Amino acid sequence: MLSEFSLIKQYFQRQRPGHAVLGIGDDCALLAPSPGTQLAISTDMLVEGRHFFAGADARMLGHKSLAVNLSDLAAMGATPRAFTLALSLPAADPAWLGHFAHGLFALADAHDCELIGGDTTKGPLNVCITVFGEVAPGHALRRDAAQAGDDIWISGTIGDARLALAGYLGEHPLDEANQQTSSLRMHMPSPRVELGRALSAAPVARAAIDISDGLAGDLGHILAASNVGATLNADALPAGPVLATMPTELRRRFCAAGGDDYELCFTAPAAHREAVLAAAQQAQTMVTRVGTIDAEPGLRYIDAAGKPLALALVGFDHFSGG
Amino acid sequence: MLSEFSLIKQYFQRQRPGHAVLGIGDDCALLAPSPGTQLAISTDMLVEGRHFFAGADARMLGHKSLAVNLSDLAAMGATPRAFTLALSLPAADPAWLGHFAHGLFALADAHDCELIGGDTTKGPLNVCITVFGEVAPGHALRRDAAQAGDDIWISGTIGDARLALAGYLGEHPLDEANQQTSSLRMHMPSPRVELGRALSAAPVARAAIDISDGLAGDLGHILAASNVGATLNADALPAGPVLATMPTELRRRFCAAGGDDYELCFTAPAAHREAVLAAAQQAQTMVTRVGTIDAEPGLRYIDAAGKPLALALVGFDHFSGG
Repeated sequence: MLSEFSLIKQYFQRQRPGHAVLGIGDDCALLAPSPGTQLAISTDMLVEGRHFFAGADARMLGHKSLAVNLSDLAAMGATPRAFTLALSLPAADPAWLGHFAHGLFALADAHDCELIGGDTTKGPLNVCITVFGEVAPGHALRRDAAQAGDDIWISGTIGDARLALAGYLGEHPLDEANQQTSSLRMHMPSPRVELGRALSAAPVARAAIDISDGLAGDLGHILAASNVGATLNADALPAGPVLATMPTELRRRFCAAGGDDYELCFTAPAAHREAVLAAAQQAQTMVTRVGTIDAEPGLRYIDAAGKPLALALVGFDHFSGG
Repeated sequence: MLSEFSLIKQYFQRQRPGHAVLGIGDDCALLAPSPGTQLAISTDMLVEGRHFFAGADARMLGHKSLAVNLSDLAAMGATPRAFTLALSLPAADPAWLGHFAHGLFALADAHDCELIGGDTTKGPLNVCITVFGEVAPGHALRRDAAQAGDDIWISGTIGDARLALAGYLGEHPLDEANQQTSSLRMHMPSPRVELGRALSAAPVARAAIDISDGLAGDLGHILAASNVGATLNADALPAGPVLATMPTELRRRFCAAGGDDYELCFTAPAAHREAVLAAAQQAQTMVTRVGTIDAEPGLRYIDAAGKPLALALVGFDHFSGG
């Protein structure tokens, strides 16, 4: 059995030079924030059986554990800088740790985000990452900044992760190819870091959130914080490639209240449409305009013809699930 | 059942004004580091059945979860600023959450350390806190800074937490009063934040670590990082009030390799003895000189008469425990 210390050293302490003043191996890491920036901080805990299946692929889990945190930085328009990792494991399996570290560092390196500290312990599988990014004062994309008349935009596509879950659970059986394609969206989300940064730089966008618990619920947080309402075109929602081939009712429902999408939902003044598209182009990320912020509270849906739709949806909630 | 969002809001979002630019309630918190400081960051994960017993008192658990993190800041000489909390719970029990929050915030407020973000989820009980402190560049007390000839010091007393565990496990039965007194040391450690700050300010100390896994193992990290050795006077080690009444062999052993002490072990030049005592006075924390850093690698023990002692000890390790 490996010891706690060699676990960190062997799998997570790397030779490549980092930005941190002091990385893994002391009581604390030391980070010197760039002068004139604010630090954006987010923490997410992933629990076996709740956020991922027992026996989940370790490489994908390493990727996803960091991805969901980077997605929070993206939603603030912050540039990733560093992260800490706390890991509870039933056993110190070298193969598992190697795969996990591989998935984790592949994504970390792609975003130049350095692992600066950690903790490993024995226990039920649990991954807790805290991530640090930098953003210029006043440029963070907050939830409380949406204004009536703003366009509502969504990055990438949504709903395929929810469809994959429906396939796994037998709620909506999928053929093997569709299960595989949609599952990749569930296990390997792409945090929209470049887009978030481009949207916050000018700034182009006003409010933003990442879609983790389903669009309706997450947009609802923007509406509540900004004291506004919204109208969404349910048929403009950018369904994932597999979900797009499914019946209308399922497509609308899984787009509006899926979960595990890790795309950005953001608002921007209508006068910024060109700038939004330029930012998307710069970030090489697709964006779709899906609705409008209203002064009137509440979230309303319309169809492609502009006719009101009654979609009864609830966002995913880790405690209401049972 | 409470929802994930109301859990955070109801128990952990507070009305008192904080230092953070943006606290709980967005994708990220925003922290503006004080100009010219570095950020000290540490993360610790506490797992039921590993770091605390099933059914542990929630208020004490709230205290201890933050205390072990503040202790890491203390060991760097950093001033606490903020923390994030990720919490996995089998159920959202309002009474438990109230007690947990009470213990957590009592300690947080005592150190003016603000909760700026968090995550709650359903799962096996697990508490992961990441803490942020500030320290002037070059003033952090690192593990690699010990030098041959340095005095070795310890704050407070050690070994009573280990004795409490021995009592619980029947390894060394204790009467009720002794079990109660020693258990308080196990459940309610006092992070030595003021002492750490006083030692780093001048700076008075060279290297420091907090004693979490037992003195021998933790001092061993300083020795390895600094490429030095040490001689400890096993009879000078400041045993806790209960352990001090126990047989010599047990006292020496639990002092040298206890665990869960959360006292500081630090080194300082012999010329700084007065300054160390002044710092201790300023922090109103007892300190005891227990040995010397040697050029020769290895950790040696002597008794009160200066005679070599053979103590066969191993530090506590979360993965070697079974």
